[in-house]
Amino acid sequence: MTERGLLIVLSGPSGVGKGTVRKAIFDSEGNDFQYSISMTTRNKRVGEVEGVDYYFRSREEFEALIEAGEMLEYAEYVGNYYGTPLSYVRKTLDEGKDVFLEIEVQGAKQVKEKMPDGVFIFLTPPDLSELRSRIVGRGTDDLEVIDARMKIAREEIEMMALYDYAVVNDQVPLAVERIKKIIDTEHVRVDRVIGKYRKMLEEL
Amino acid sequence: MTERGLLIVLSGPSGVGKGTVRKAIFDSEGNDFQYSISMTTRNKRVGEVEGVDYYFRSREEFEALIEAGEMLEYAEYVGNYYGTPLSYVRKTLDEGKDVFLEIEVQGAKQVKEKMPDGVFIFLTPPDLSELRSRIVGRGTDDLEVIDARMKIAREEIEMMALYDYAVVNDQVPLAVERIKKIIDTEHVRVDRVIGKYRKMLEEL
Repeated sequence: MTERGLLIVLSGPSGVGKGTVRKAIFDSEGNDFQYSISMTTRNKRVGEVEGVDYYFRSREEFEALIEAGEMLEYAEYVGNYYGTPLSYVRKTLDEGKDVFLEIEVQGAKQVKEKMPDGVFIFLTPPDLSELRSRIVGRGTDDLEVIDARMKIAREEIEMMALYDYAVVNDQVPLAVERIKKIIDTEHVRVDRVIGKYRKMLEEL
Repeated sequence: MTERGLLIVLSGPSGVGKGTVRKAIFDSEGNDFQYSISMTTRNKRVGEVEGVDYYFRSREEFEALIEAGEMLEYAEYVGNYYGTPLSYVRKTLDEGKDVFLEIEVQGAKQVKEKMPDGVFIFLTPPDLSELRSRIVGRGTDDLEVIDARMKIAREEIEMMALYDYAVVNDQVPLAVERIKKIIDTEHVRVDRVIGKYRKMLEEL
């Protein structure tokens, strides 16, 4: 019997280094998950390959998928759609393989609504753990600057609340190690494995 | 600000090797948690030290602690009480240190009621993952034997349902590694760390 794969969602504030960490995870030893290829309506550039870099689709096709509830998440940037088609993710999970998504926080929010049993990992800037010094600074900044920093920190923390895990990106190899431990651990969660045992007993 | 420690509870069916795995964890590198010393009403044996091997107490003192709700878990074996005093566990967690309990399933059930936010790890026999062959055997056993095995397997699986994680004890070093990953991962759970960040912001 195949155990269902895990949907792993890596996100975090822009500039935190999500892409770098994702690449390091895929380049590292002992990982065994599929990277989900995004779909877009923008034009294919020279050297890009359909189904490798992106699934290239027309605006009409993309909007039809949105209408049908077949986009796990999507957004529009500079007049083009970008998103994750649900069909591939669902099929891969059903085959018992883990799927890894590295996406923006707005996309992660949509995924959380559609697939709440995913593993949601929030990558935090290293200085979030040193909030005080980051916000108050050297004590020479005026109140307006401090207020603006407070606002950003507050927003980041409230974003984090939607996630299961907060991983500090202080050093890429350390962040990678933490994320891999999370994935291994999620695989031994009782609520993920007990169904398999129960089913085995029923089938005897 | 000190983050609260984790209460880690390792349990599982008798004979699964809980004690061996616990010892291997404490002997391994990079662990940083406290082992909770049990309390008992049995007589001190030669060489045993108060507060090291056990807290030795009279029956009256032990029962007074039970009455006061000050035992995290306890049981009676052959006329003597054995249990975990709550005060030490609470104090250690408040100091930001993790506490590791290795106890029988009945005790783990009591801990789950008193401290549901603990990390509950169920150690499973390696053959639980090969349920079918374990139960059906070589096909030469009679129905009564198979039924008895079914019953035990069913009980183990239903015990497991109370836990957060199921770790297979196929090889002790592998089980140790899995448990250490679980502990590291639990430390980066958003619901455990977000309070710290929120409090930092409030205090600014």
